[in-house]
Amino acid sequence: MNLENFFDPKSAAIIGASSDKNKVGYSLVSNLVGGKKREIYPVSIKEKKILGIPAFASVSDIPSRVDLAIIAVRADIVPQVLSDCGRKQIPNAIVISSGFKETGFAGKELEDKISSIAKEFDITLLGPNCLGVINTKTDLNVSFSAQKPLSGKIAFLSQSGALGTALIDWANIQGVGISKFISLGNESCLTEVEFLEYLENDPDTSAILMYLENVKDGPKFLETVSRITPKKPVVIIKAGMGSHGNLAVMSHTGALAPEASVFVSACKQAGAVTVSSLRAFFHLVKVLSQVPDINVPIQQLIVLTNGGGPSVVAADLIDRSHSLSLSILSEDMKESLQKVLPPMAAVGNPVDIIGDALAERYDKALEILSADENADGIIVIMTPQMMTQAKETAKILVKYNSRKKIFPVLIGGSSVQDGRLELINSGMAYFTFPRDIIESLDYLARNAPKIKPPYGHHGNSTGPVSGNGDMMEFAGALDLLSKYSISVSGNFLTRKEDLGKTLESLGAGPYAMKAISKEVIHKTDTGAVRLNISNPDEAGWIWEELWTKIPAVKGIVVQKMEKGREIIIGMKRDNTFGPTLVFGLGGVLAEAIKDTTLRIAPVSKEEALKMMQEIKGIKILQGMRGELPVNFDSLADIIVNLSRLSLEHPEILEIDLNPVIVTDSSATIVDARIMV
Amino acid sequence: MNLENFFDPKSAAIIGASSDKNKVGYSLVSNLVGGKKREIYPVSIKEKKILGIPAFASVSDIPSRVDLAIIAVRADIVPQVLSDCGRKQIPNAIVISSGFKETGFAGKELEDKISSIAKEFDITLLGPNCLGVINTKTDLNVSFSAQKPLSGKIAFLSQSGALGTALIDWANIQGVGISKFISLGNESCLTEVEFLEYLENDPDTSAILMYLENVKDGPKFLETVSRITPKKPVVIIKAGMGSHGNLAVMSHTGALAPEASVFVSACKQAGAVTVSSLRAFFHLVKVLSQVPDINVPIQQLIVLTNGGGPSVVAADLIDRSHSLSLSILSEDMKESLQKVLPPMAAVGNPVDIIGDALAERYDKALEILSADENADGIIVIMTPQMMTQAKETAKILVKYNSRKKIFPVLIGGSSVQDGRLELINSGMAYFTFPRDIIESLDYLARNAPKIKPPYGHHGNSTGPVSGNGDMMEFAGALDLLSKYSISVSGNFLTRKEDLGKTLESLGAGPYAMKAISKEVIHKTDTGAVRLNISNPDEAGWIWEELWTKIPAVKGIVVQKMEKGREIIIGMKRDNTFGPTLVFGLGGVLAEAIKDTTLRIAPVSKEEALKMMQEIKGIKILQGMRGELPVNFDSLADIIVNLSRLSLEHPEILEIDLNPVIVTDSSATIVDARIMV
Repeated sequence: MNLENFFDPKSAAIIGASSDKNKVGYSLVSNLVGGKKREIYPVSIKEKKILGIPAFASVSDIPSRVDLAIIAVRADIVPQVLSDCGRKQIPNAIVISSGFKETGFAGKELEDKISSIAKEFDITLLGPNCLGVINTKTDLNVSFSAQKPLSGKIAFLSQSGALGTALIDWANIQGVGISKFISLGNESCLTEVEFLEYLENDPDTSAILMYLENVKDGPKFLETVSRITPKKPVVIIKAGMGSHGNLAVMSHTGALAPEASVFVSACKQAGAVTVSSLRAFFHLVKVLSQVPDINVPIQQLIVLTNGGGPSVVAADLIDRSHSLSLSILSEDMKESLQKVLPPMAAVGNPVDIIGDALAERYDKALEILSADENADGIIVIMTPQMMTQAKETAKILVKYNSRKKIFPVLIGGSSVQDGRLELINSGMAYFTFPRDIIESLDYLARNAPKIKPPYGHHGNSTGPVSGNGDMMEFAGALDLLSKYSISVSGNFLTRKEDLGKTLESLGAGPYAMKAISKEVIHKTDTGAVRLNISNPDEAGWIWEELWTKIPAVKGIVVQKMEKGREIIIGMKRDNTFGPTLVFGLGGVLAEAIKDTTLRIAPVSKEEALKMMQEIKGIKILQGMRGELPVNFDSLADIIVNLSRLSLEHPEILEIDLNPVIVTDSSATIVDARIMV
Repeated sequence: MNLENFFDPKSAAIIGASSDKNKVGYSLVSNLVGGKKREIYPVSIKEKKILGIPAFASVSDIPSRVDLAIIAVRADIVPQVLSDCGRKQIPNAIVISSGFKETGFAGKELEDKISSIAKEFDITLLGPNCLGVINTKTDLNVSFSAQKPLSGKIAFLSQSGALGTALIDWANIQGVGISKFISLGNESCLTEVEFLEYLENDPDTSAILMYLENVKDGPKFLETVSRITPKKPVVIIKAGMGSHGNLAVMSHTGALAPEASVFVSACKQAGAVTVSSLRAFFHLVKVLSQVPDINVPIQQLIVLTNGGGPSVVAADLIDRSHSLSLSILSEDMKESLQKVLPPMAAVGNPVDIIGDALAERYDKALEILSADENADGIIVIMTPQMMTQAKETAKILVKYNSRKKIFPVLIGGSSVQDGRLELINSGMAYFTFPRDIIESLDYLARNAPKIKPPYGHHGNSTGPVSGNGDMMEFAGALDLLSKYSISVSGNFLTRKEDLGKTLESLGAGPYAMKAISKEVIHKTDTGAVRLNISNPDEAGWIWEELWTKIPAVKGIVVQKMEKGREIIIGMKRDNTFGPTLVFGLGGVLAEAIKDTTLRIAPVSKEEALKMMQEIKGIKILQGMRGELPVNFDSLADIIVNLSRLSLEHPEILEIDLNPVIVTDSSATIVDARIMV
């Protein structure tokens, strides 16, 4: 698939071109003309000349070859225009026009129509209902964005047009550039995946930011992102995290893996950075413009300041971050600082060169601090004091930025404006508050050091989940699990005659008995589970009781009671990403606080071992108060086997292995349920 | 104590005045002269005239009465100057000079000296090492801040001077004003408490913001804040949350109540809003300038937007906030919207009036939405599209702001700048990202609806905690607890002869036995606790074992084993705020995730009942899976009694009641330890 024509077409036709400055058809021509020299063919049924360029009544009339068609006509005319483009053998088209599936059923039909025309004529199509494409490298603006972005190394893929223009407008005044902007629109043909594949190998792009509302093909998306993240950072803001309805949840596992958490886990697993606010997202554009290679993590920081208060706040934020810390200055370094700084300066970290610091004092401190090999970067905080030299200080920061990464935080307003402009003009980003840079660095560092993402190919297309949510027959479930070496403890009996022999084979008690019935889900709620049964006589009485009292009882599971730590392992098939493995602590508290961790299948053993370490109550499994650690290896085997099973059985919606009792030597699955 | 002279002196002397524009002594005079007409007396040993005003060689030479002395001379001369002021009977003084306790031991001595001079002459003194005071209402700037703040209703008290200037500088370009700015400096005499008391009754101040690094008198501070918050919002940023060392922690309770958490709990209890980043803090200045009365909470929100993406992000943030929600629009309202908006607009909430919205469309939508009685406010998002009318739209927002609170979010840069300026000029605040306003509203709403803070007087001055951390003898501990109606289960035996009779009195087993020894803290780690003892014989063997194996055993507690939910209740004496009550779930998971809630004593029964509801695992106590709720009443009694005990026994550092076993009918304290 050739996307090159979207980013550097030699010739382009604008269908729906106009001389009316209030129309999109004007902005499109004017933006194209404003860029690098190209063959430009306005197409209009009303006008003969647009912006001084001869216009054609139809694309068919254009005498030369056209690389790219840009369509901005009324929605109902688009099919006709697109067919014309097809006959003219135009390989690429952008449909700017709206009025398609975003408007409802009739629009959806119209959109299907243009999809099939595109397919028929082999047109690679972006849109409809999009803002277009911008490529700063080739000076191409195929959009109706009023603002022209600055040139930079960050690509921005967006399912929201509004956000695209807002980001460009904001980035411009912050002095931050982008490489390419792609407004994805309705994605009737091309989706985020094709553009990701293009950007993967785009030498002009060193980082990719994406605004997403939905993902068409979850597995393909993850596979692509996984391939890119070891080379280029990918930052994702996913909107609609709270508002998606979930399938009715039938199992514990289901409740523990809501769609929003699965999305975040999946992206993380693929090595991407996910953020939840636009502020954080926009600031990451700034930070990435300064730190193109997140494979060299910035975690150890020095804070240099002319004001105590803000530096203490910054130190607190670093302290409470997930992955950043204040680097420890050597005694030698402190001594050197003391020699050049006034006696009231603080030479710990934060280094406080106090309120009357002129640019020269920043210079002296940075001369020493920039040589610190332990520090990955220096956050320099400047507050406007009476004597503060904002512009001169900014020049000093630019000077040292090549030696050690400098992140300037200029708190205030007009008093520091000079300094901000100086930084922008020198290609450096500035921040207004410590949190802006600290939060951004923390987002990036959480993904470092990079570990090869474990996500790989698998044959299953997920598609929308379509099961009925029926519970699989208990015996059948056990059978299926055992084929994947997942053995559930206990014996499923349907005749009381077998009870005695079974108890004998289990050895000494206490035993547990559970009535199996479709109508009873949380067995402990209803008396269907009986524990601490000490002898065969007691077991006999309980058999009678269960058999008569539990509705629709199919049989009774008899097992020896296990002692150990309680775990839940499960699988839930996510609408977008398919089988999602869930691992968590069992018991009521763990359930109440949802202490769980997720992974999209396939999960390798290495990854399974890693995911278990993420739960909040991990100390319990590592062994508190002299206990031995649990057998993580056995648990990992269960996860890996469950991963395999769920990939090979797309008809299964949810699986609960709950509880799994784990000791230092083994893991026993006490109960299992499968929903199809 | 008269603070009025700090805010509106009729006459002021500047000691250390200067004509050199680079000196603080110049800025002080020039800032004073720039304000309302006052008698101004520069004092300089070098100059005869400063800024055209005759200067005096000493305050003693000033012929008239002086209300306020502003001292900006070298630190070592301050005592002499202050004595002169005393003899001249100047009632109030601000010491701007630095070089006192912030510089070490010698500076501390100098500071003690000026404190005692102030006391001797009855001078009410602010500083030293401070920036001074600004009062916009009386046009007074007794500081060397280069920027003059705009007038507003928010007071800012700061222990950091740098932050003061930064906030003023920032607020100015945001069009946000303040009423008073007070730089607290080293607080050698006046502290935050005296100024809080002043601001409590200041008619020009409707909200108070504070930057704090430490609090001198915790109980007094809380008492004052508690009194103010029902009338005026108090917002606190406390720096140094992560870096304070703790006392060596001896008990479970100690580990569960680190100093930073106690501070946040204490402020919350007093009704204040605490934030952790400067960005959030600064944005609250903006929001409070728009919403002076937080007792009318803003929780139900409408989002109106011209761009789908940003509104979805905003809706997500509202969804995930603690206390905000999207209000549900009535069908009538939706119909009205549909009539005036284009067919592609979305009339749910968010209301999306789409990218080509001109100001007129905002007008039509707001005409309808501002009449919604369910909504407390409307967040209006504007992204820069080709046709967006930033300025005209801003005018529309100003128009409706009087009918329904409008929070404008103008995402972008230069394209929306016109609109931002229009808002500022009309006295409205704007925001750049949805998070800025949503986070701020969430901070405020979390404290609403206001409940009378329970914090009251108590006679104990806390002072630094000074105990040795010794464990109190077990029998003594039990004795003390029982005086406060806190009875610990079990019998403390020191002779084996008493074992049989004791077991008999307890009734049927199983029993538990615990060896009491100073050397053994976590008893379960070492075999000092033995559970599930079924009969007197077994108890006899275990007695022997404990008595021989446990080091330094003092006795053995024998008790009947209780079944129920496990709780920990405790007290830790905080350095700043004194006795802090801790309530949490027991058991290893609860300990691993620190599922606890805190309150500063005294704690009323009502408050005790409320605090228990805050733990994450509250469902467990409310009864999951058909269990009855626990007896919250008995637990609350224990908390209240422990609160009383800890106030009356300042020698006690920490108390652990752990575990407390609670059922639906009663609460049994199984073990107790007291550290003095």
